Amino acid sequence: MDNKLHRIKVTELQDRVVSADEAASWIKDGMTLGLSGFTRAGDAKAIPYALVRRAETEQFKVNVFTGASLGSDVDKLMAEAGIVHKRLPFQADPAMRRKINNGDIMFVDHHLSQTAEWIRAGVIEPIDFAVIEALEITEDGMIIPTTSVGNSSVFVKHAKNVIIEINLSQPELFRGVHDIYEPGKQGQRSPIPLTGVNDRIGTIGIPVDLEKVKGIVFTDQADSPSTILPSDEETETMAGHLLDFLRAEVASGRLTNQLAPLQSGIGSVANAVLHGLVDSEFHDMEVYSEVLQDAVFDLIDAGKVKVASASSITLSKEKMAQVFGDFEKYRDKILLRPQEITNHPGLIRRLGLISINTALEFDIYGNVNSTHVSGTRMMNGIGGSGDFARNARLSIFVTKSIAKEGIISSVVPFVSHVDHTEHDVDIVVTEQGYADLRGLAPRERVPVIIENCVHPMYREQMRAYYAEALLRGGQTPHVLEKAFSWHANLATNGSMLLSE
Amino acid sequence: MDNKLHRIKVTELQDRVVSADEAASWIKDGMTLGLSGFTRAGDAKAIPYALVRRAETEQFKVNVFTGASLGSDVDKLMAEAGIVHKRLPFQADPAMRRKINNGDIMFVDHHLSQTAEWIRAGVIEPIDFAVIEALEITEDGMIIPTTSVGNSSVFVKHAKNVIIEINLSQPELFRGVHDIYEPGKQGQRSPIPLTGVNDRIGTIGIPVDLEKVKGIVFTDQADSPSTILPSDEETETMAGHLLDFLRAEVASGRLTNQLAPLQSGIGSVANAVLHGLVDSEFHDMEVYSEVLQDAVFDLIDAGKVKVASASSITLSKEKMAQVFGDFEKYRDKILLRPQEITNHPGLIRRLGLISINTALEFDIYGNVNSTHVSGTRMMNGIGGSGDFARNARLSIFVTKSIAKEGIISSVVPFVSHVDHTEHDVDIVVTEQGYADLRGLAPRERVPVIIENCVHPMYREQMRAYYAEALLRGGQTPHVLEKAFSWHANLATNGSMLLSE
Repeated sequence: MDNKLHRIKVTELQDRVVSADEAASWIKDGMTLGLSGFTRAGDAKAIPYALVRRAETEQFKVNVFTGASLGSDVDKLMAEAGIVHKRLPFQADPAMRRKINNGDIMFVDHHLSQTAEWIRAGVIEPIDFAVIEALEITEDGMIIPTTSVGNSSVFVKHAKNVIIEINLSQPELFRGVHDIYEPGKQGQRSPIPLTGVNDRIGTIGIPVDLEKVKGIVFTDQADSPSTILPSDEETETMAGHLLDFLRAEVASGRLTNQLAPLQSGIGSVANAVLHGLVDSEFHDMEVYSEVLQDAVFDLIDAGKVKVASASSITLSKEKMAQVFGDFEKYRDKILLRPQEITNHPGLIRRLGLISINTALEFDIYGNVNSTHVSGTRMMNGIGGSGDFARNARLSIFVTKSIAKEGIISSVVPFVSHVDHTEHDVDIVVTEQGYADLRGLAPRERVPVIIENCVHPMYREQMRAYYAEALLRGGQTPHVLEKAFSWHANLATNGSMLLSE
Repeated sequence: MDNKLHRIKVTELQDRVVSADEAASWIKDGMTLGLSGFTRAGDAKAIPYALVRRAETEQFKVNVFTGASLGSDVDKLMAEAGIVHKRLPFQADPAMRRKINNGDIMFVDHHLSQTAEWIRAGVIEPIDFAVIEALEITEDGMIIPTTSVGNSSVFVKHAKNVIIEINLSQPELFRGVHDIYEPGKQGQRSPIPLTGVNDRIGTIGIPVDLEKVKGIVFTDQADSPSTILPSDEETETMAGHLLDFLRAEVASGRLTNQLAPLQSGIGSVANAVLHGLVDSEFHDMEVYSEVLQDAVFDLIDAGKVKVASASSITLSKEKMAQVFGDFEKYRDKILLRPQEITNHPGLIRRLGLISINTALEFDIYGNVNSTHVSGTRMMNGIGGSGDFARNARLSIFVTKSIAKEGIISSVVPFVSHVDHTEHDVDIVVTEQGYADLRGLAPRERVPVIIENCVHPMYREQMRAYYAEALLRGGQTPHVLEKAFSWHANLATNGSMLLSE
């Protein structure tokens, strides 16, 4: 018997091992796939690759639903092969982004906590094949996921068929780290019993109806590492402003030095800001996030974070070698959950998270654009930022005040796309400073944002816009016909700086 | 002993009865008030009136926090007297609106479920005086509210002082209808145990620290009735489209003829749409809303609705006489709760509500403006629409396709203010038809909205905008410099119809 078959502990499933090409051949034009994978972690790899190979000689398209973004170039290769019709709820690949912005791929940009509800209720296309990366199949018929959970459990429960990719290169010590909980149908559910970050409320694996397991494929390809950039002077300055804000909250008595469970979005800026806590006075912190990046493990190593819950672990190459190579050390401090639990509005509010996410741009009233360059071209998607921002104790957005050496101001009169409204944004931070918008009327927000967050090269221009808007009056003064003039000037003249 | 003193069942409190003018004299310039009142129901009346009288001879300003809008001209009189500095979280009075739009009153437009969190956490100004309308004070020291709960319980718990207005004209049968639940501090809470619309999870009154009860005032002024308009042909047509949509959901197996707990926003359109269910095949329905308007009692009378939970009851003059005059009939079918429970994101999602709210305008991608006329002038505020829309099973927005005999199209290229993003809007309905946006990418949404919802007089103009936008490409095609041209044309030429 092949040695790796011990990963399939249900004996009757052992003869369902097939090649990736054979499994991929079952997937037909027009079908809908539910792929494991969340922020480059734990993605199904072999079947998507086999589909891309098949596309060399055959025309077909499938809908691709996932947890969040995929790694291992899966989105890139599928996009380039032209086999994706609809994609949801999040992606972060440049090649796929181009196809989306050309209108070749229909991208449904969805709150990460909500896709599970759509699948459970039968709102979107039913899943023909769930393709799930796993460490093993247990004796009692549970799929043990790898480095992410994402939407895998809801895909498995509702798919007509399941294909399992057992990845031999993933760290076996992840067994026991997962906590799989299924809320049940809306209207028939009990309260989700989680009241603390480290509460275990579910099972260590995903229960699967064995009848539905159509095939099992063995793979050994590691997750692709994250590509986050190291801190730079500006991200460190932003981290400093954020620490100042948190210290003010402690001084006011609203927080203690243990803070509150932290959520930090994907990306370099959020990672750098979180890293800024390593040398701070804050201690015994908890992380309740959707993804754990390098900084969380630095905080654990520094003895600052005692427990971290998320839906995936996404690390740089060096950090991955260190953390996965010595995982026994981290094992009892980590929980991986379905994304509808990590991002659940009720739990975010119950725990009272401090939520830190990245903005593409924000405006003088505190509306945030997280997704669309100049209001039209998709970057990655809203991801979980809406789940967190709406319900967090503190909803914080960070961005550098300018981009591309100043031709773009990240603070604008009117954001060109709204992902987070004025009602959902508490604090905005740039390298210039932070603006605390809580309890401020729109007219009170403007001067704080201009003086604390706008880059000096754009301040005068912003004051002029607002002065003109004030002549028009209103709760939220605007000069509508000039609201997007900065974006229009960027398109026409290559800069948001208006000439006199 | 004065006969009405039997309403104060804690004997030691009976000598705290004072005149409204005396109680109002304790309120000083710069203080913050927490007033009972939610959508014209159960508002504190005597103390605000006394403050307005005091303003004839004295200059002062206070912050006014409430549940939602006030009736009895309280907001009007306070605004005209110039005594309001900051107002939150919602209002609906024309005189106050003018002051807000002039910048004379700082209005913080806040999700109705969230103000309680701000007060509990000490984020906004602490409440100096809670002024709460009541039926009575019980033997065990609880305030029994009247026709609304709103934020009264969190005001009472956190205020430095409490003034109680015992209103002898409110129906005494309301005793026992309230269900007061306090979630506790974020990070230290248990799951809220409510799993069904008619679950009782709290107490029948608001516990109050007797030390804080500074004064008690007797009043006998009835709530002011609602001013909703009767159904017209267009609202009936919209109700018909909504019924068609619900029938399609039943046909698909996603709903049964019992539907799911219904939420309906304040206002004539939402009331008319709900009224459309009276003669439908749907039965044994439940209502889990923030306010109960006339239509809910019509549905109860018709045997269609078996239980209704909300934070207030707001009725027309005729309906008020009928319902309050015969309240024994309705008593066991009604629960009144704090607004953070009626509007709680976790509960809305758990129960899987069908949420129906009114839009001022929406755009071709499904973004909704609920608050700002032409992006600048506040109407009423976001109210609870965001609480419901984000977390409901079905998030539905309704509006007539045109306003003011066609000079305004309610469907526009780009909404002039975003309260609900494309991520939070499932269905839009006008008298033209409905568009089901679930699972659609932005480019798929546009034709459905144009053909099903836009008024014929604006369709060609909208198709032209979108055709030009498509040339620019992107996930969400726009011609940014023309995105607000319809609004600009309205301001300049008196119509959104562009001349050739």
